[in-house]
Amino acid sequence: MKTIKIGLVGTGYIGRCHAIAYAQAPTLFPLKGKIQLEYLAEINQALADQKAREFGFQRATDDWRKLVTDPNVDVVDICTPNFLHKEIALEAIKHGKHVYSEKPLALTAQDAKEMVIAAQQAGVKTLVGFNYIKNPTTQLARQIIQNGEIGEVVHFYGTHNEDYLANPNTPIDWHCYKAKAGLGTLGDLAAHIVSIAHYLVGSDIERVIGDMQTVIEERPSPHNPAEKIKVENEDQASSLIRFANGVMGTLESSRISCGRKMGLTYVVTGTKGTLSYTQERMAELKLYLHDDDKSRQGFKTILVGPEHPDYAAFCVSAGHGIGFNDQKAVEIRDLINGIAADDPMYPDFEEGYKISRVLEAIAKSAEEKRWVEVSEI
Amino acid sequence: MKTIKIGLVGTGYIGRCHAIAYAQAPTLFPLKGKIQLEYLAEINQALADQKAREFGFQRATDDWRKLVTDPNVDVVDICTPNFLHKEIALEAIKHGKHVYSEKPLALTAQDAKEMVIAAQQAGVKTLVGFNYIKNPTTQLARQIIQNGEIGEVVHFYGTHNEDYLANPNTPIDWHCYKAKAGLGTLGDLAAHIVSIAHYLVGSDIERVIGDMQTVIEERPSPHNPAEKIKVENEDQASSLIRFANGVMGTLESSRISCGRKMGLTYVVTGTKGTLSYTQERMAELKLYLHDDDKSRQGFKTILVGPEHPDYAAFCVSAGHGIGFNDQKAVEIRDLINGIAADDPMYPDFEEGYKISRVLEAIAKSAEEKRWVEVSEI
Amino acid sequence: MKTIKIGLVGTGYIGRCHAIAYAQAPTLFPLKGKIQLEYLAEINQALADQKAREFGFQRATDDWRKLVTDPNVDVVDICTPNFLHKEIALEAIKHGKHVYSEKPLALTAQDAKEMVIAAQQAGVKTLVGFNYIKNPTTQLARQIIQNGEIGEVVHFYGTHNEDYLANPNTPIDWHCYKAKAGLGTLGDLAAHIVSIAHYLVGSDIERVIGDMQTVIEERPSPHNPAEKIKVENEDQASSLIRFANGVMGTLESSRISCGRKMGLTYVVTGTKGTLSYTQERMAELKLYLHDDDKSRQGFKTILVGPEHPDYAAFCVSAGHGIGFNDQKAVEIRDLINGIAADDPMYPDFEEGYKISRVLEAIAKSAEEKRWVEVSEI
Amino acid sequence: MKTIKIGLVGTGYIGRCHAIAYAQAPTLFPLKGKIQLEYLAEINQALADQKAREFGFQRATDDWRKLVTDPNVDVVDICTPNFLHKEIALEAIKHGKHVYSEKPLALTAQDAKEMVIAAQQAGVKTLVGFNYIKNPTTQLARQIIQNGEIGEVVHFYGTHNEDYLANPNTPIDWHCYKAKAGLGTLGDLAAHIVSIAHYLVGSDIERVIGDMQTVIEERPSPHNPAEKIKVENEDQASSLIRFANGVMGTLESSRISCGRKMGLTYVVTGTKGTLSYTQERMAELKLYLHDDDKSRQGFKTILVGPEHPDYAAFCVSAGHGIGFNDQKAVEIRDLINGIAADDPMYPDFEEGYKISRVLEAIAKSAEEKRWVEVSEI
Repeated sequence: MKTIKIGLVGTGYIGRCHAIAYAQAPTLFPLKGKIQLEYLAEINQALADQKAREFGFQRATDDWRKLVTDPNVDVVDICTPNFLHKEIALEAIKHGKHVYSEKPLALTAQDAKEMVIAAQQAGVKTLVGFNYIKNPTTQLARQIIQNGEIGEVVHFYGTHNEDYLANPNTPIDWHCYKAKAGLGTLGDLAAHIVSIAHYLVGSDIERVIGDMQTVIEERPSPHNPAEKIKVENEDQASSLIRFANGVMGTLESSRISCGRKMGLTYVVTGTKGTLSYTQERMAELKLYLHDDDKSRQGFKTILVGPEHPDYAAFCVSAGHGIGFNDQKAVEIRDLINGIAADDPMYPDFEEGYKISRVLEAIAKSAEEKRWVEVSEI
Repeated sequence: MKTIKIGLVGTGYIGRCHAIAYAQAPTLFPLKGKIQLEYLAEINQALADQKAREFGFQRATDDWRKLVTDPNVDVVDICTPNFLHKEIALEAIKHGKHVYSEKPLALTAQDAKEMVIAAQQAGVKTLVGFNYIKNPTTQLARQIIQNGEIGEVVHFYGTHNEDYLANPNTPIDWHCYKAKAGLGTLGDLAAHIVSIAHYLVGSDIERVIGDMQTVIEERPSPHNPAEKIKVENEDQASSLIRFANGVMGTLESSRISCGRKMGLTYVVTGTKGTLSYTQERMAELKLYLHDDDKSRQGFKTILVGPEHPDYAAFCVSAGHGIGFNDQKAVEIRDLINGIAADDPMYPDFEEGYKISRVLEAIAKSAEEKRWVEVSEI
Repeated sequence: MKTIKIGLVGTGYIGRCHAIAYAQAPTLFPLKGKIQLEYLAEINQALADQKAREFGFQRATDDWRKLVTDPNVDVVDICTPNFLHKEIALEAIKHGKHVYSEKPLALTAQDAKEMVIAAQQAGVKTLVGFNYIKNPTTQLARQIIQNGEIGEVVHFYGTHNEDYLANPNTPIDWHCYKAKAGLGTLGDLAAHIVSIAHYLVGSDIERVIGDMQTVIEERPSPHNPAEKIKVENEDQASSLIRFANGVMGTLESSRISCGRKMGLTYVVTGTKGTLSYTQERMAELKLYLHDDDKSRQGFKTILVGPEHPDYAAFCVSAGHGIGFNDQKAVEIRDLINGIAADDPMYPDFEEGYKISRVLEAIAKSAEEKRWVEVSEI
Repeated sequence: MKTIKIGLVGTGYIGRCHAIAYAQAPTLFPLKGKIQLEYLAEINQALADQKAREFGFQRATDDWRKLVTDPNVDVVDICTPNFLHKEIALEAIKHGKHVYSEKPLALTAQDAKEMVIAAQQAGVKTLVGFNYIKNPTTQLARQIIQNGEIGEVVHFYGTHNEDYLANPNTPIDWHCYKAKAGLGTLGDLAAHIVSIAHYLVGSDIERVIGDMQTVIEERPSPHNPAEKIKVENEDQASSLIRFANGVMGTLESSRISCGRKMGLTYVVTGTKGTLSYTQERMAELKLYLHDDDKSRQGFKTILVGPEHPDYAAFCVSAGHGIGFNDQKAVEIRDLINGIAADDPMYPDFEEGYKISRVLEAIAKSAEEKRWVEVSEI
């Protein structure tokens, strides 16, 4: 069995999630490759060393350039702040590494496009960390839709709302600067719901008309609460959308949506039924079938179980629950099998780029107050 | 105590609801006027007589013109098919009657405007049957918002989705013809959520950009299933909206939304909290307050009770439940007190007209694929 | 059509509910008799007169004995405090009146038995106000069970929990005295869940072993908060039960169950499925069918609608909601049709007596710490 | 840092869960010891070798006696069928090993007692796999109770219902034989809810009166569906309970409870509030506080997050979800820290024995139809 040597760049919130997933994936799945946690990069050697110990990596560096050029690294796993994704990925690709990048792929669609082209030309494989589509429950949703159980899709409503910046006294951070984050809630959160929209509807978003607002226009400096600093990107955004197959839809996203801790939700309406889901109850899916006897119609709450995609890896009994990190373990499975056995890897940079275009089209349409074709981006 | 003599025109679905409400209102509320069920009009004398007996009206006629001119009628209560609202209302107003009309006020905003002007010139009082804002639970929502408990409103999401036309084999009916219904789901259902949006946000919708679709383009003739007849108005519609006070929002409506039996829902997000509601659980309101201790945050499910507006009229114990007809009883209370004691009556024709303008603006914006100011209508 | 002349004794909480139901029933249902609100009794003439006006009764008295002997009264409707039920009922029966009594039928099973015998001997008809079994949703539950849709019932779990005495500082009231209320939470609340248990399982409870507790042993006097008065009956009670058909079950009841405003709930488990319900969401029923495809199993939330028993009387559209008073209107329909057309009336005094026996058996078993046969009572 | 060498016996359902937890624990927690997956035993060498590879163990054997006597094993982790727990544990203890056993500790309380005594005498540390009390959400419940936030506990209702044997055509398996499983649903499922009852109420169950039933008295042979074999233990059981501190409660358990996939639920009622939980939504806890303003009372749904015990190890954002295996990882953390640093380990054999006594007391009380003191066992 092929050994896949991982080079991890960045060990914050999401880097740690990757580490957890690397640790559990081999026990969960019959992987087609052997994971070797080879190299880890952080901003200074001490932190790199500490994280390498914690995460079980063999070597550590304070220079990601060393990592991406290291002959003993097969995959570069990018968990840095967003603004670094592009530079690291391009450099890794240049050295023939496969690249596994966290979302968003880049700060702009143009940057994402360059990354797609570079990867294609270099013939490396790519994967982007839109992990919510790896949830067995959302995989089940897709299966139900593809089976035609809810008929033809006629409407998609999706949100990704959270409240991490709801308090106006929360000091400004990197999320609020264009140079660090690009878009605001669109880039940080809405990227996920666009990913799910594509995945579930099975068609790309083709045109959009959005609206957006920076509700809290300035925030305290983290260093001096009395000093106020301007927020550069949007707190909330909504968009009407049309998919290429004609399906209507609506997307909403907010980082100031009080009470939403993981408000990634979708309602997919078809000609014969409806699916409803919220990530805050990530192990259940509500399914309504209009052909049920009229006196026995209703939304059925399906608890995800071993009959459904990828759940059995976690537990042989239904309803026992899956957690956030389990999604990432599925993603790692796809990464390893994709590289070791050339299995398809999805969502790749191409899909990451498509998502960026949709998000930028929404922002553009909001600024220009008109419908925008995604192809304009 | 003044006696208020009611003339009811139309005894179908909603006319019967009015009759139920007239019957129970005097026991529920200490009304400021005495209800006299004076006169009832239907399309033929036999039906009129039968319904007068069932509903407890003293006299019956097959000619609504007789009713609206009858000196012994104080209020004309219009429960006919929508396309007749205008003609009957104008005639009633001409004869100095107060008018209580079911929604939508008219098939077009222009028609609604004529009705508003006529009523103003005649100095009669008006009320439109947007009964969902009379629900104690939604009254509580407004109270919470007006108290500032959720801070300043920053977002409104509302839907009115049902599935009465979800099955493509359901024969065509009056809802589907422009001449009978005007708009499709916008006129029939979305009118309610616009009414709630205005009521809760406390500001009028100022501009909109909508999208809409006739998903099931033709339906079987009710007389011959093999014959297909063209559906003339929209099955589903969505709109981004901006209120006059700058608040962002989204409205959605569908009559083919599988599984939604009474899918009137709203989520009102403020700077300090959020309210969430669905009419399918009309006796409960979910309230989240961001200032709660971080480890004790969450949506609280409040069961409506005697501490809340108008509930005590129905029951002295909380959580015992209120039903659809109870809302109408509150509306009848407002009608009687409005006419007997000149209490304010809301929503009046002016508000009905405003709602029509919003709906037409949505339709226009969908056709012209651009943002439309409600003032353009 | 026969006229049924009502004599109402007592106009408090539940008396007012009866009045609301009398007012709306004729519009809701095609009754087989005409309701005449003939006579009303209260503790003094002024109150009696006022309530007669409010409720629409023709005459009023401060002496219930006048009412029960009045030749112009067909049905005596007893809404007094519980300790008066027996005396009034026996007197009414003696004068050949039909009797419609609120629950509990009497303070003791022995008293209830006397009432049953008296009514049988006099040949009058009786009805007891266990209104929750009149809810269309619970009627639907019974229909599903009787159809065999959940197979054979194997377990019944039911509660009636409320929190009206949860606060230890709430002053003592009539509920807490044996002479006024008889049992505590068993008599006041559990009576309802026993009624539902019989109704749904279709078999009588045969033996019980209960446990009970007076958690708050004394309460402030209503006249002097510093003075503490002993609570004479139980705050919470639970019982294992066996039905005559062998089905196992558990009942729980509490009047100090924080957060339960209308905590009447049941879970009926069968060999092929399960029903789950809470009165706090009185318009929905959850149904699980084990024969569903394993990957599509789940509890389905059915919103009650016109396909279900008695709902169409309230609304022709599903999911529009029914309220507390609507149940009472169904009960009044049964009363009027029972007396006017000799339709069966259920639950009658016989059933009221059976329920009292179960409750007393639970209390006895708790005191004697042993299983008690209901037939011992 | 001390190295803790694990010897795992049994690799079925729960053994695999242990393996997953061993794999991820070091990345999740700053453990006080280093886990070394040393030795694994299965019923034949081929299976043992395969599982050792899958789970990452260094050595494998087909003879658990070799494992428990191996000088290079510190902890014996017992994941075998229940009937082997005792023998393996006693042998391990005899060789001075610490023992980590899955629940139930043994088939009988008497056996469990022997194990407790042996461990005490040998001075080894013990842990039993009642993993549900390791869930951050249930830890939060305990914290809320211990803080006095819901006042003094007055009632505990708990269930562990599943439906794995609901279908009467499911062939008989080891669960149904006394010699293999001991008690039926009591041993398999109710053990968990007893564990939670003790953990949350903070007092031991002192006396019980139970009822139980074998509903499906015989089942098809797995080898020949036409042949029916007698089921030897109970399908469903319920019990009234009293804790040592006087608190009343009720426990229910069933393995034929249609629709319950992970029906471990509890409602803990206090004098000032109530907690409600179901394992099927393992990341949320409902909290009601009676001292809230009367018009703002309600159950609040708290999504578990980094403010709560042990959640931050999994994710730094609230509401992102935890899964079944995450509980086991917390348990493994406790195991490693308990052995490496002598941190307290709970629940130990002593607690496992207490739980067995409660279960046996329930069975005995059901057979003898009387209240049984747990101390009688």
